[in-house]
Amino acid sequence: MANGNSFGVLFCVTTYGESHGGAVGVVVDGCPPRLPLSEADIQAELDRRRPGQSPITTPRQEADRCQILSGVFQGFTLGTPIHILVRNQDARPQDYQEMATTFRPSHADATYQAKYGIRNWQGGGRASARETIGRVAAGAIAKKILRLAAGVEILAYVQRVKDVEAQVDPSSVTAEQVEANIVRCPDPQAAAAMIQKIEEAAREGDSLGGVVECVARRVPRGLGSPVFDKLEADLAKAVMSLPASKGFEIGSGFAGTYLTGKQHNDEFYMTPGGWRTRSNRSGGIQGGISNGEDIVLRVAFKPTATIRQPQNTVTLNGQETVLAARGRHDPCVLPRAVPMVEAMVALVLCDHLLRHHAQCGSLVLSEVPLPVAAAPQA
Amino acid sequence: MANGNSFGVLFCVTTYGESHGGAVGVVVDGCPPRLPLSEADIQAELDRRRPGQSPITTPRQEADRCQILSGVFQGFTLGTPIHILVRNQDARPQDYQEMATTFRPSHADATYQAKYGIRNWQGGGRASARETIGRVAAGAIAKKILRLAAGVEILAYVQRVKDVEAQVDPSSVTAEQVEANIVRCPDPQAAAAMIQKIEEAAREGDSLGGVVECVARRVPRGLGSPVFDKLEADLAKAVMSLPASKGFEIGSGFAGTYLTGKQHNDEFYMTPGGWRTRSNRSGGIQGGISNGEDIVLRVAFKPTATIRQPQNTVTLNGQETVLAARGRHDPCVLPRAVPMVEAMVALVLCDHLLRHHAQCGSLVLSEVPLPVAAAPQA
Amino acid sequence: MANGNSFGVLFCVTTYGESHGGAVGVVVDGCPPRLPLSEADIQAELDRRRPGQSPITTPRQEADRCQILSGVFQGFTLGTPIHILVRNQDARPQDYQEMATTFRPSHADATYQAKYGIRNWQGGGRASARETIGRVAAGAIAKKILRLAAGVEILAYVQRVKDVEAQVDPSSVTAEQVEANIVRCPDPQAAAAMIQKIEEAAREGDSLGGVVECVARRVPRGLGSPVFDKLEADLAKAVMSLPASKGFEIGSGFAGTYLTGKQHNDEFYMTPGGWRTRSNRSGGIQGGISNGEDIVLRVAFKPTATIRQPQNTVTLNGQETVLAARGRHDPCVLPRAVPMVEAMVALVLCDHLLRHHAQCGSLVLSEVPLPVAAAPQA
Amino acid sequence: MANGNSFGVLFCVTTYGESHGGAVGVVVDGCPPRLPLSEADIQAELDRRRPGQSPITTPRQEADRCQILSGVFQGFTLGTPIHILVRNQDARPQDYQEMATTFRPSHADATYQAKYGIRNWQGGGRASARETIGRVAAGAIAKKILRLAAGVEILAYVQRVKDVEAQVDPSSVTAEQVEANIVRCPDPQAAAAMIQKIEEAAREGDSLGGVVECVARRVPRGLGSPVFDKLEADLAKAVMSLPASKGFEIGSGFAGTYLTGKQHNDEFYMTPGGWRTRSNRSGGIQGGISNGEDIVLRVAFKPTATIRQPQNTVTLNGQETVLAARGRHDPCVLPRAVPMVEAMVALVLCDHLLRHHAQCGSLVLSEVPLPVAAAPQA
Repeated sequence: MANGNSFGVLFCVTTYGESHGGAVGVVVDGCPPRLPLSEADIQAELDRRRPGQSPITTPRQEADRCQILSGVFQGFTLGTPIHILVRNQDARPQDYQEMATTFRPSHADATYQAKYGIRNWQGGGRASARETIGRVAAGAIAKKILRLAAGVEILAYVQRVKDVEAQVDPSSVTAEQVEANIVRCPDPQAAAAMIQKIEEAAREGDSLGGVVECVARRVPRGLGSPVFDKLEADLAKAVMSLPASKGFEIGSGFAGTYLTGKQHNDEFYMTPGGWRTRSNRSGGIQGGISNGEDIVLRVAFKPTATIRQPQNTVTLNGQETVLAARGRHDPCVLPRAVPMVEAMVALVLCDHLLRHHAQCGSLVLSEVPLPVAAAPQA
Repeated sequence: MANGNSFGVLFCVTTYGESHGGAVGVVVDGCPPRLPLSEADIQAELDRRRPGQSPITTPRQEADRCQILSGVFQGFTLGTPIHILVRNQDARPQDYQEMATTFRPSHADATYQAKYGIRNWQGGGRASARETIGRVAAGAIAKKILRLAAGVEILAYVQRVKDVEAQVDPSSVTAEQVEANIVRCPDPQAAAAMIQKIEEAAREGDSLGGVVECVARRVPRGLGSPVFDKLEADLAKAVMSLPASKGFEIGSGFAGTYLTGKQHNDEFYMTPGGWRTRSNRSGGIQGGISNGEDIVLRVAFKPTATIRQPQNTVTLNGQETVLAARGRHDPCVLPRAVPMVEAMVALVLCDHLLRHHAQCGSLVLSEVPLPVAAAPQA
Repeated sequence: MANGNSFGVLFCVTTYGESHGGAVGVVVDGCPPRLPLSEADIQAELDRRRPGQSPITTPRQEADRCQILSGVFQGFTLGTPIHILVRNQDARPQDYQEMATTFRPSHADATYQAKYGIRNWQGGGRASARETIGRVAAGAIAKKILRLAAGVEILAYVQRVKDVEAQVDPSSVTAEQVEANIVRCPDPQAAAAMIQKIEEAAREGDSLGGVVECVARRVPRGLGSPVFDKLEADLAKAVMSLPASKGFEIGSGFAGTYLTGKQHNDEFYMTPGGWRTRSNRSGGIQGGISNGEDIVLRVAFKPTATIRQPQNTVTLNGQETVLAARGRHDPCVLPRAVPMVEAMVALVLCDHLLRHHAQCGSLVLSEVPLPVAAAPQA
Repeated sequence: MANGNSFGVLFCVTTYGESHGGAVGVVVDGCPPRLPLSEADIQAELDRRRPGQSPITTPRQEADRCQILSGVFQGFTLGTPIHILVRNQDARPQDYQEMATTFRPSHADATYQAKYGIRNWQGGGRASARETIGRVAAGAIAKKILRLAAGVEILAYVQRVKDVEAQVDPSSVTAEQVEANIVRCPDPQAAAAMIQKIEEAAREGDSLGGVVECVARRVPRGLGSPVFDKLEADLAKAVMSLPASKGFEIGSGFAGTYLTGKQHNDEFYMTPGGWRTRSNRSGGIQGGISNGEDIVLRVAFKPTATIRQPQNTVTLNGQETVLAARGRHDPCVLPRAVPMVEAMVALVLCDHLLRHHAQCGSLVLSEVPLPVAAAPQA
């Protein structure tokens, strides 16, 4: 549990696999029993993640067909570990031979070599984005639990590519709008401009970054485990563990630091259904615990490190050299990062749903009516 | 381990305590034995964190004297849990009576009540910044280990208050420069402007936020545990678990997303001591693993939620009301957040130092000379 | 979490403290909120554990008064960490001076020195039975939760001292019978013989061991997390982590291995309240999961290692020498081990109650009526 | 990590899989990099575990061929998760149709149904001994690390079947002696009697239990993490998580409780290589930490629950009925339990080797010579 390949406490996923070699996959432990689950549930999300979907992603063709090898029986989960496996294929190791000895700038080659004294240099090895297949597969299960148990909906989209910024209202954006174009930006005008920019970068052998925004709606109040496992802290870790991520914001984020407290605070008011906040600069989380408003977060993704233009670098043996990547790479990871961000957010929320349920759920701890413990004395 | 009050795998800290009531403190488990350690080592950091240091922090006077109650013998650590306790004092619960029934906007009152059905409404209860005493105490130990084992130096400072931005070079800033003024900003001109802004906000019963930047120098290569416990992911979680934090950046952060891959990548070159990178937009981490360059990160802190100006809110019983906080609060948390950020960064680095040592350290696994496993076959 | 001083996943306790030095205690994390809890609840169990209770335990007088320093407000738990502290007192370090350089046979002196390169040689240091104060305190909370939530009753007693064996029916023995004599054996005749044997050993400067049996009644069906955290596996670890324990049995234990399958199996039959088993050689657990029958287990405790008779041993500096322990020691740990065993069993059951509740509890995962998933197809 | 399918902290294994369905397997996380590893290393241990080896085990023919799907590159471990998969085959689900509705006495059918509300009733589902394939595969890696890093040798053998007891000296027994006969008992005379008894029970449709003893030699001093993760506590949990285990002993075990302290204590003496103990009733562990002597433990295994003789039981729908198992079962699990016990012991020792290395290893924490911290003051 201490080696960085597992995530979550009660809804716990362990991914394995390098980009080349036998397979990648995930073991999902802690899934409640009797959940209807099929390979189709998972494949739908994997298809959003896989390469080769459109002209602006890598042309690599990876079918990424998943198999459920345990934990499901006659269409329902057993409560035992669910193993989902995806075989590696379409390997063209000759594309990577140069990487055996040459470190790609801003990639994981040099640091893996420094840490482990060995690395699988074919493709990205363990640092490849293929590893996220396991996350997205597990996220599909988490999403289903969240939807069935609490009606939670999680939706991410490309909010910015380089300097092309979309206008999106997180409270009303729909999945259809997101999937309406290949860049997964629900603002059609911005989407068109983004696509153009990405194609341009691709032609130049360069790459682009940007921002993915994600909203989670109808998250029950009470999720999050202060103090270290505040909901925003676990969300931050979740998305900052995705390849190429460089920044995280919840609610008002960095922009909120330009406001005063009076301007920033979310005032409460009453509704027939209980208290709400008039604004949502908190991003749906206060004191590390969800407050029932939309959870809104943003993730910065750097431009793809692998580019066709020549760059100065060094070799395993300490020689300076110049590298121009061949292989087939995404000129912009943002469109494919959308399902990854959704998956990581779903894993966090599902884990905290179970954790909240365990500690604060329906266990009755007194035969006599519970006293109003928190009532003030005065 | 699954309840949000522990942090770290091998260097594992567990904090406890509400702002009012007996005490706050921390149990540090996993500290290597035979480390020289005294209460003075810890008190020095606690004194940087405590209230009442200067006119721009809360006037509450809390001495925050620490006691080491276990784990140290004759001046050296035993390898057993180190318990550090700080008694609560200077409580003025009458300042908080109103909070028993009234939720402070953008504070944790409402969500704690929703989650637990009970809360200690005196001060911030568990959500109080007093909880960070345990973190800072543990961080002092982590810093000492990092310094003795690897020469690591961790330094945070206020980089921006509202729109007053400092010019600081992370690679050369010194602790003396940071501590030279009460706002802990190493740019004297900006510091003066920040102090003025904070005093102004305090007079108006308002509050300010801003950005803390942190640099860790001489971090050994190889720290970080891909894939979920990437070093930047654990750093993000660490600082996003601090009260009032709203955003996190590593290296180029959000600004980096405006560059192309060619502009953003950190090219390698050779030095007599091995490879280095010419730029450091990666912020000292590539592929989730430290690369030996300075680790540079930034944390956004929102303006303090507790303000003296009246705000609309609701009560425990569902009545709308108006609240104007009394009590004594920080008009800007940034100066006191500096040692907290340092502590959290130290906890992450120390934990990963031990983790790296465990998996990739000096265990010899072969009687015969290790083959050059990673060498390419061609 | 990886350093051996924490126990439990959801109901997680962390103990700290050496026998001499500031204090011993425990942080209990994960306790459900709104549980009525006072120091008196905990003190009652600590009083059963403390030395000086009777002529057959150590004459050391340790009041062991507990303080709750966090996690409880106005008589109810907050859901935040509960810290319980017991100050050390009655230290007579001069009794232990010799232990600074001389290893007591079959004690932890030599191995702590080998592992850590340092040890607190006053009393037993961290290896002292004083450490179990934290376990017993936490166990008192676990017992209360188990009783209120599910009516569970946990009862341990001395089943054998050396070769004096008691006749006890686990299904009907009462707490009053156990506490009716100072050796905590509910068979009065055997108790008298045990007391005589212990007094005899004490006079001779020798010590005795024996067996503690423990029954847990009304444990709900379904507790236990196959495959590694089978209920009997976690119970085994729990009691084998107590000082001086050398063996563990569940249900039929070692004796059951002399039966054939036909003789050993527990046949099922129906009652108005559901299925039951006619015999209980399984000890209340089948396939790692509680089956609703009484959980019955036994723990072997070796004779106390510290004896007044002279023994051959060695010093820190590698000299052979002879040691005759002074100090004040239990001639037989069994009577005081009874509350310790109860506490450890309670910790395991409480943790698994919450874990079961989290995964298999009342989360509704489908709007449509749940299909009869497990029904056979044929 | 909290769902019972993972084991170990730093050398952490997660098993998955039901007896029927796609596959069983294991993900090993935390393996040091650059360890030479091949499928042959693992297959050798799996072959000792698999059914159909001899007339006294089940006649089911399961080839149990393993595949390494990740974590190994060009014959060496990468430091990333190692996934080992074994496809299920030879399924004869018709043998199990009756189990869909009928609970086998003393098996896991009823409790799985009670806990999860669903179960895979084909074979034993998750409770099948097939699950131990993952453990044995992971244990093969742990054994190799222990051997290469420290020369540790782990050897288990059948010590007793029902009332046929072998005479074996744990300090000198060899692997060749154990593997010399099909019952894996190194005492040839006892082995012959055991085989005869097992064949007799098989003919009668009955089953037998017994005791497996295990010795670990050349375990370095210092392994074990007091207080909860004492080495014997983790060993107890490890083997008590194996199917059919009912009891555990370390060193003198239950028999030791018949001795006095004077008789039981292991006196120290000096050798040129440092201190040793003259006797080994401690079983190689004192105070929860290995002391360098042989670690010796015993595990009680009950007679196999599945027997051909008719037994009273109940159905899923609450009807009383009579069941006579068909299918093909082991009349005695002991011979196949031998590699399982070795594997679990190896997992514990390997994890604690890494844990000890992490906390107490070669990190240098002071530039100045370390003071002699533990030296007595007097």
